[in-house]
Amino acid sequence: MEEKASTAIAGISHDRDSIINLDHGDPTMFEPFWKEVGDSATVVIPGWQKMSYFSDPKNFCWFLEPEFANEALRLHRIVGNAVTDDRHIIVGVGSTQLIHAALFALSSTEARQPVNVISAAPYYSMYSSIADFMKSGMFRWAGDAAAFNGDDNFIELVCSPNNPDGEIREAVCGNEAGKRVHDMSYYWPQYTPMRRPADHDIMLFTVSKATGHAGTRIGWALVKDAEVARKMGKFIEMNTIGVSKDSQVRAAKILKVIADGYELPDVEAGSKFFHFGRCLLANRWKRLRQAIEASGRFSLPQFPSEFCKFFEEHAETYPGFAWLRCEDQSIVDLEVFFKTINILTRSGRQFGVGPEYVRISMLDRDANFDVFIKRISSLE
Amino acid sequence: MEEKASTAIAGISHDRDSIINLDHGDPTMFEPFWKEVGDSATVVIPGWQKMSYFSDPKNFCWFLEPEFANEALRLHRIVGNAVTDDRHIIVGVGSTQLIHAALFALSSTEARQPVNVISAAPYYSMYSSIADFMKSGMFRWAGDAAAFNGDDNFIELVCSPNNPDGEIREAVCGNEAGKRVHDMSYYWPQYTPMRRPADHDIMLFTVSKATGHAGTRIGWALVKDAEVARKMGKFIEMNTIGVSKDSQVRAAKILKVIADGYELPDVEAGSKFFHFGRCLLANRWKRLRQAIEASGRFSLPQFPSEFCKFFEEHAETYPGFAWLRCEDQSIVDLEVFFKTINILTRSGRQFGVGPEYVRISMLDRDANFDVFIKRISSLE
Repeated sequence: MEEKASTAIAGISHDRDSIINLDHGDPTMFEPFWKEVGDSATVVIPGWQKMSYFSDPKNFCWFLEPEFANEALRLHRIVGNAVTDDRHIIVGVGSTQLIHAALFALSSTEARQPVNVISAAPYYSMYSSIADFMKSGMFRWAGDAAAFNGDDNFIELVCSPNNPDGEIREAVCGNEAGKRVHDMSYYWPQYTPMRRPADHDIMLFTVSKATGHAGTRIGWALVKDAEVARKMGKFIEMNTIGVSKDSQVRAAKILKVIADGYELPDVEAGSKFFHFGRCLLANRWKRLRQAIEASGRFSLPQFPSEFCKFFEEHAETYPGFAWLRCEDQSIVDLEVFFKTINILTRSGRQFGVGPEYVRISMLDRDANFDVFIKRISSLE
Repeated sequence: MEEKASTAIAGISHDRDSIINLDHGDPTMFEPFWKEVGDSATVVIPGWQKMSYFSDPKNFCWFLEPEFANEALRLHRIVGNAVTDDRHIIVGVGSTQLIHAALFALSSTEARQPVNVISAAPYYSMYSSIADFMKSGMFRWAGDAAAFNGDDNFIELVCSPNNPDGEIREAVCGNEAGKRVHDMSYYWPQYTPMRRPADHDIMLFTVSKATGHAGTRIGWALVKDAEVARKMGKFIEMNTIGVSKDSQVRAAKILKVIADGYELPDVEAGSKFFHFGRCLLANRWKRLRQAIEASGRFSLPQFPSEFCKFFEEHAETYPGFAWLRCEDQSIVDLEVFFKTINILTRSGRQFGVGPEYVRISMLDRDANFDVFIKRISSLE
């Protein structure tokens, strides 16, 4: 296995012509932590186990593995990022399926008009496609929440910390009649100070961003209303007849290792996941800000230092994406500009703003991040 | 682990009041084979592996694990149930997600009218819900293919062997302008003789029915047309950003064990999966037919013996479901009747026919099947 890993790293070419793909938020940055942890995070599933469709036939969410639910709730309690009392927990194929499920659950099959789905720009680039790609008669994308002048019939998607720009957000539309889905994928201590446990009607999380295991495709929702939770579960039943048990078992193990790292006595210093993640991101953000400042062409969002109840100290914000703005008038399209130096980014246009912005993943492997910084630093 | 298994079996109550749920086709019948096989079917995934979203960035289906694709194609070649040359392979969260993906890929976002989705009754109970539940403007359920009098704009879902009744089927609508999706979930040697490799535009398979691993939620599609395959992959990207890698790795291992059982020299007799499955199903069907005949109240479909190219002998058909018809005029609703003896079945009404039919799973654990036979046999 070690051999495989070193081959993979050796496979990353560092020459000038290599294409560095920072378009997606692929969280491979966390791999070294999981290598260091070793066997305690290894999942083993015998061939005859977990064969049935059913995980918990007595639960309305019958495809939810109890051990996964327990570990997710345990980690929330340790981290303090979400209120879990009196909530229903639904597992999904990543938070993406849960966004679909929430839109379905908050809409009506009986409605004459589809409900408007909105989010404040810059908004996560997939929200518009998720709302529109099936041409559903139940909901439709209606754009920037800040510009929304519609009726009471809307669902606001609130991403906090926001993808792409890392801002802590509240709902923009104050209208009480509307409904809200809070996408909390990045509300973990490596990215942002834990101010208080979030307390919203529907909160979405995903192991992709929490632990780095994007390939497991496991997300979860904490839902206040029983009927909304039931309808979300129904969506997942109709869409995929439940969620991989193997991945739930693996995610439970991964979350357990993180929780044990903070709760068990005598654990080694290297087994504190959020400390590892914060330290690595702090270093990357420092290097990025230095390179950006030296270039004189771009700017980055600034974040105030805030008290983090998890780390019990004042902490900085280190988003999973750099939301870069071009300050150089000679560059019209920043995504195109980065393509000329073989760095793939995602244009601001995909987030509802202009081509002077790009989103750049901060979560890739060290070797790729190093090349990215080197290329920015050597811009003439 | 052995302890866990015996507890689970002990947990099945055999008394008269216990509810036996044969509504779903939960394929737990195959568990003993996988226990017998032991460690060779165990999957082990270290914490730092399979973290990325990407399995194969150079493949248009970038979330497809190459080892899974290789083992699926290898098993098709051994079994001879599908033509695999010049096909694109797409992995999905069970065949269910692939049905959604196929409807999406065969429809048009530009069309003024949704395309009609049809299937010959009795049709799989989920087809109608899959087509309608999102109120998509791209496609809509239009019922029994045999009664369809619409225009050229249709997609026929052809399930063969058919769920619920086990029939080998061809498309009903001969109109060349229509499109077809072949759901081949049950075209494996334990259920039906392998007549010839199926050769259709879109063919769907799932490990649930092939190997019994429903909880892994892994299905795959063999697709002739590159553009249709690309659109199916796009659907899965928008719906769930890919498919669990853990489950793909596990499914690859499971398929490999089955293939090795037929290809490697010196394997033990007990490691031939399709022999195990056929033997168990043959025994169950024999007992069911005897009990049904003795009751005098019900009838079952009859199937001709046919030459199976896989077993290289004449073989019988042993469907995964018993499609039971009531011949007793005093019983109006067969599902309700079975409920009175605490056997849960699925009514013919859900398959587009009448309440004189029920579908009963033949794939549950031995203990449950035994109770089912006992209760039918003791009907007065």
